[in-house]
Amino acid sequence: MPTDSLTLDRPLDMHLHLREKEMLGLVGPLSAAHFAGAVVMPNLVRPVDSLADLLAYREQVAAATSGHVFMPFMTLFFRDYSDEELAAARPHLLGIKLYPAGATTNSEAGVKAIDAAESTIRRMEEQGIPLLVHGETHGFVMDRESEFLAIYRHLAETFPKLRITMEHITTAGAVALLDAFENLFATVTLQHLLITLDDVAGGLLNPHLFCKPIAKRPEDRAALLAAALGAHPKLMFGSDSAPHPRSRKECCGCAAGVFTAPIALPVLAELFEKHHGLENLQAFVSDNARAIYGVDPPAKSITLSRQPMKIPESYGGTVVPMFAGEEIGWSVRSD
Amino acid sequence: MPTDSLTLDRPLDMHLHLREKEMLGLVGPLSAAHFAGAVVMPNLVRPVDSLADLLAYREQVAAATSGHVFMPFMTLFFRDYSDEELAAARPHLLGIKLYPAGATTNSEAGVKAIDAAESTIRRMEEQGIPLLVHGETHGFVMDRESEFLAIYRHLAETFPKLRITMEHITTAGAVALLDAFENLFATVTLQHLLITLDDVAGGLLNPHLFCKPIAKRPEDRAALLAAALGAHPKLMFGSDSAPHPRSRKECCGCAAGVFTAPIALPVLAELFEKHHGLENLQAFVSDNARAIYGVDPPAKSITLSRQPMKIPESYGGTVVPMFAGEEIGWSVRSD
Repeated sequence: MPTDSLTLDRPLDMHLHLREKEMLGLVGPLSAAHFAGAVVMPNLVRPVDSLADLLAYREQVAAATSGHVFMPFMTLFFRDYSDEELAAARPHLLGIKLYPAGATTNSEAGVKAIDAAESTIRRMEEQGIPLLVHGETHGFVMDRESEFLAIYRHLAETFPKLRITMEHITTAGAVALLDAFENLFATVTLQHLLITLDDVAGGLLNPHLFCKPIAKRPEDRAALLAAALGAHPKLMFGSDSAPHPRSRKECCGCAAGVFTAPIALPVLAELFEKHHGLENLQAFVSDNARAIYGVDPPAKSITLSRQPMKIPESYGGTVVPMFAGEEIGWSVRSD
Repeated sequence: MPTDSLTLDRPLDMHLHLREKEMLGLVGPLSAAHFAGAVVMPNLVRPVDSLADLLAYREQVAAATSGHVFMPFMTLFFRDYSDEELAAARPHLLGIKLYPAGATTNSEAGVKAIDAAESTIRRMEEQGIPLLVHGETHGFVMDRESEFLAIYRHLAETFPKLRITMEHITTAGAVALLDAFENLFATVTLQHLLITLDDVAGGLLNPHLFCKPIAKRPEDRAALLAAALGAHPKLMFGSDSAPHPRSRKECCGCAAGVFTAPIALPVLAELFEKHHGLENLQAFVSDNARAIYGVDPPAKSITLSRQPMKIPESYGGTVVPMFAGEEIGWSVRSD
C-alpha cells in the first residue's frame, strides 16, 4: 500500500539563491516555510566577500525569514583570504564558493586558474573550511562540466583533506567522480533530476527551464536520478533555486535560472515515489548533508502528503516557478 | 589584393519558407531582390499537397515577387501520390518534401516509417522526381540528425536512382554521407555555417538563433563550413529562412526559425572571404544546385560589394533577422 504522507526531519536546501531587498522578502519566506536551513549563495550584485558583509547579509536573511524555524548557512565568495580572515570567518560560514573565472576548455589552463587560488585553498584545507565550486569551463556549453572534471580531480588530489563540493552537477561523469575521491561531494538540483536539453530546446524554446549548467543528455539525467534515488551518501539536494523577474526570463536574451524552492519537496516526493519509493528522500534532503558538513540545523519537521496541489503561475506576480500552473500529486501539509 | 566586389550569376536559395498573405508580401520581395530563384517549401498551414494547390501557391508567390526576375521552384508536401498525380505534377515541381513523422530514435522503427512511404517513393524514383527530406528523428535534440543518418543510408541504398536531398544538414556525419552515396545531396543554411548551440544557449538564451534542426557542436560547424568553403559539389546553399513575427520569437515557448534571406548573400561573402576566398561562392550559391537539379533559372546577376551595411532591427516592424542591428562588411549593390 502506498504511503499517504511522509514526515521529513530537518529538510535542507544545500544551494540556494536568496538575493536581496524585495526579492529576498519574496523568496526568503518561501524557502523558510519548507526547509530547516539552506546554504545561501554569496553572489549578490556586490559579492559577499568579507566577514562584515556576511554578517550583514545573514541579518537580512534572518529578518526576511523571521517567524520561521530556518537557519541560513552562509558562504563567502572566493578571493584571496589571509589566515586571519579565514579564522575569523570560520565560525560563521559553511564554506567558500569558487567560480574559477579563468577555467577554459584547456584543462591545463584551468588548473593554472586554480594555481592562482592555491594559497587560499591550502589555508582553507588547513582550517577545515569546505570549498564549494561552480565547475564549468568556458568551452562548448554541453562540455563545460565534463571538461571541468579534470580540475576537480586536480583539486581533490592536491588538497586531500579539503572537503570539496561539486555544486549543481549535471553529468554522469561528475556522479562517477564521487566514488573516485574521498573528499569530493556534490549537490544536485531538482530540475537536473527531471529535465534534459530536450525540455529547454527540443520542442519550443523554454526560457523557464534555462539554467546554468544547462540540462544535459538523457544518460546524464539517468545517472543523477539513480544517485539521488539511491541516496548516494555523498550527494545532497541543493535546489540552486534562482528567482528572476518574469521580464528577465521571457525576453530576447533570457537570464539563466529555475525557481524551484517552494515546490521542491513535494515534487521530490512525487519523483521518489514514482521511481523508487520514499524511503531515501530523508537522506537526500537532509541526512547526507548533515553527515558531510557536520551541521546541526534546528529541530523542524515537514510533512508531505498525497494531496494534489496546483503550482502557482507566479510568486509575487513576477517570479515564475518550474511547473507553473501545473498540478502535482503531493503537497506540504500546512499545520 | 582583396576583391572589392563580386558578381554572382543566378544565385539560388534552395530551401526557403515564404509563407502566405501578408507575410509572403513582406518576405517574398526580399528574397526576389537577391536571388534568381528559390525552392519554396510546401508546409503552409494547409500543406501544399496537390497540383491545384501548388499552382495556386505559385501564383501567389509570383504576385508577391512581381517586378523581380525570380523563379519559384515549387515543391509538394509528401503523401501517397498515384502515378498519374506524379506525372501531372512533375513538370511543375522541383521535388517532394518528406518529413518522416514516424521516425524515432530507433532506426528500425524509422525505416518502418519510411516503409509506409515506399510505394510513392518508388514511383518518384521511376519518374525522376527528387525527394527532399527533413531528416530528424524524435530522439534527443542533439542526436536527431545523427540518428536519422541510418534512414538516409537506407533510402539511398533502396532507391539508387532517386535523387535525395538531405535538407538543412547540421552535422559532420551528414557531410560525410555526401561522399558515401552517389544519390545523396544536401542543403545547408547560413546560420549552421556560423553558429553552434553555444550561440543559442551558451550565454543568455537567444530565441532569434533557435531553429530546427538546432545548431550543433563546434566540430559539426567546422565540417559544414569546410564543405561549403570547398564548394563540395553535392552541397547547396538553402537558407531555410523562416520568418516569424517578433511576438512568436520573444516569448515563453518560442517558435523555431531564423530569418536570413535578405542578409544571406553579403554575410556569405564576408564568411567566404574571411576563411577561404570568394572564388567558391558562385558554386555554393548557384552552380552546384543547377548541376544537381538540372534547373535553368532566369538570367540575373547580383553584385556584392565591400560596402558596410547595417542590418535592420526588423523587416516590416515584426520580422527580426539574424544579426539585427549589426554591421556587416559586404552589401548587395543596388543598381
